[in-house]
Amino acid sequence: MSTVTLSRHDARRVLDAALAHAQELGVSVSISVVDDGGHLKAFERMDGASFFNTSLATSKAITAVGIGMSTEDFMQFVAGIPPLLAGLSAQPNVAILPGGAPITVDGVVVGAIGVAGGKGGEDQPVAQAGLIGLTAAAV
Amino acid sequence: MSTVTLSRHDARRVLDAALAHAQELGVSVSISVVDDGGHLKAFERMDGASFFNTSLATSKAITAVGIGMSTEDFMQFVAGIPPLLAGLSAQPNVAILPGGAPITVDGVVVGAIGVAGGKGGEDQPVAQAGLIGLTAAAV
Amino acid sequence: MSTVTLSRHDARRVLDAALAHAQELGVSVSISVVDDGGHLKAFERMDGASFFNTSLATSKAITAVGIGMSTEDFMQFVAGIPPLLAGLSAQPNVAILPGGAPITVDGVVVGAIGVAGGKGGEDQPVAQAGLIGLTAAAV
Amino acid sequence: MSTVTLSRHDARRVLDAALAHAQELGVSVSISVVDDGGHLKAFERMDGASFFNTSLATSKAITAVGIGMSTEDFMQFVAGIPPLLAGLSAQPNVAILPGGAPITVDGVVVGAIGVAGGKGGEDQPVAQAGLIGLTAAAV
Repeated sequence: MSTVTLSRHDARRVLDAALAHAQELGVSVSISVVDDGGHLKAFERMDGASFFNTSLATSKAITAVGIGMSTEDFMQFVAGIPPLLAGLSAQPNVAILPGGAPITVDGVVVGAIGVAGGKGGEDQPVAQAGLIGLTAAAV
Repeated sequence: MSTVTLSRHDARRVLDAALAHAQELGVSVSISVVDDGGHLKAFERMDGASFFNTSLATSKAITAVGIGMSTEDFMQFVAGIPPLLAGLSAQPNVAILPGGAPITVDGVVVGAIGVAGGKGGEDQPVAQAGLIGLTAAAV
Repeated sequence: MSTVTLSRHDARRVLDAALAHAQELGVSVSISVVDDGGHLKAFERMDGASFFNTSLATSKAITAVGIGMSTEDFMQFVAGIPPLLAGLSAQPNVAILPGGAPITVDGVVVGAIGVAGGKGGEDQPVAQAGLIGLTAAAV
Repeated sequence: MSTVTLSRHDARRVLDAALAHAQELGVSVSISVVDDGGHLKAFERMDGASFFNTSLATSKAITAVGIGMSTEDFMQFVAGIPPLLAGLSAQPNVAILPGGAPITVDGVVVGAIGVAGGKGGEDQPVAQAGLIGLTAAAV
């Protein structure tokens, strides 16, 4: 069996595109990129971003790669099912909060980006901007 | 004092019957079988099933053997009691989500099966299919 | 970038070959097979094997896939370097003890097997026997 | 009171200089840069570097910033004092192994770099190369 994997260069393209969008929005965030095993591949914490969000960014990325959908969409889904929300939130390294998005290459989920530290809903848009960076690079 | 215990062969029969049903349903899941002490006895993660569900499958099995009923039934029970749901869900290795079912031999709970990774309600039926596998083998 | 991965069928072949050898040796062990991300793919605990070895078997497998060599060879290597031994042993999910061996397909480390519970040096031979099972299946 | 801090740009300069040296040496490593609080600021795992070294790289960086000296020098120091070695190694996030070096700006320790994954003594030289990157950039 063979599969596609996330290269270091792709991980940094995703990271840098997300960073650029965070700067446009004027927010200081932590950004994690993980591989398909949920292991950290690249990370950067912007100046002014609290240490508090470091592991949260990674947990969002792990959740997104594990679920295979954005954590914002998943949050909407589980919000109406209290046992699911409580049960999953209690699992280690799970964060059902906006800011995580799977990275897909050739239809395969190869990793995910997680963003934490925004103040008013910027985390998910910053994560999505990272994905656009990868697409742009591939063109 | 003597008791019935879950043998390795029984554990694999349960696992394989659940695997077969998951394949019929076209879902990729993780399947855990634990003994009466909640300790892993057999496990398999299907191709395409995320690492994300590995520990969740075991937590569902641990919950089912600890409670002595299916996690789906238990979830229905605690869903109406938010403090109980929140308090239990925060315990380590507890997962009050569909997909766990106790394994009973001669009226004694000897272990449980836990299934995670289905996308639309398949976890509990896959777990129940595992139980049928044991019954069929005993005949 | 693409890579080879460990299928469920390969994982079970490794597991079953190791189980057969443990039975020949008359020992009751726990056997874990993990993928290249260190995540559990297949597991079985033999009748008579203590729950105590459940997580140890997985830690040995994680160590073997992370190091890319058998844990017995690695133990020999670090035994003469006390800081390395102490430093690595304190890491989570690391077990620098005999019983772990990487699984290689086409020259790529795709996972590992970990065995725990032997009483007198059987863990490493049982793990190695698992690898032979995969080779035999490929022929 | 004011203090010098490690900026995101400085962190990336350190990271990139270390990456370049690892590539020269032909090793695949994980590289962590932490701030003066021991919190991750930047990270990258090279293609071919195992997940196994992800947290170890960060632990080396945390140790270096906490001790204020290279982890290689500190390892030499404690190697002759087994209780100190054992006691410190058992602390969470401590790694008394070569590969960690404090980052100093204007005589103030502002953070550290940690490198893990080398096979024969490359971790410390790669970490030191990261420091040179910062100096070069400042000129």
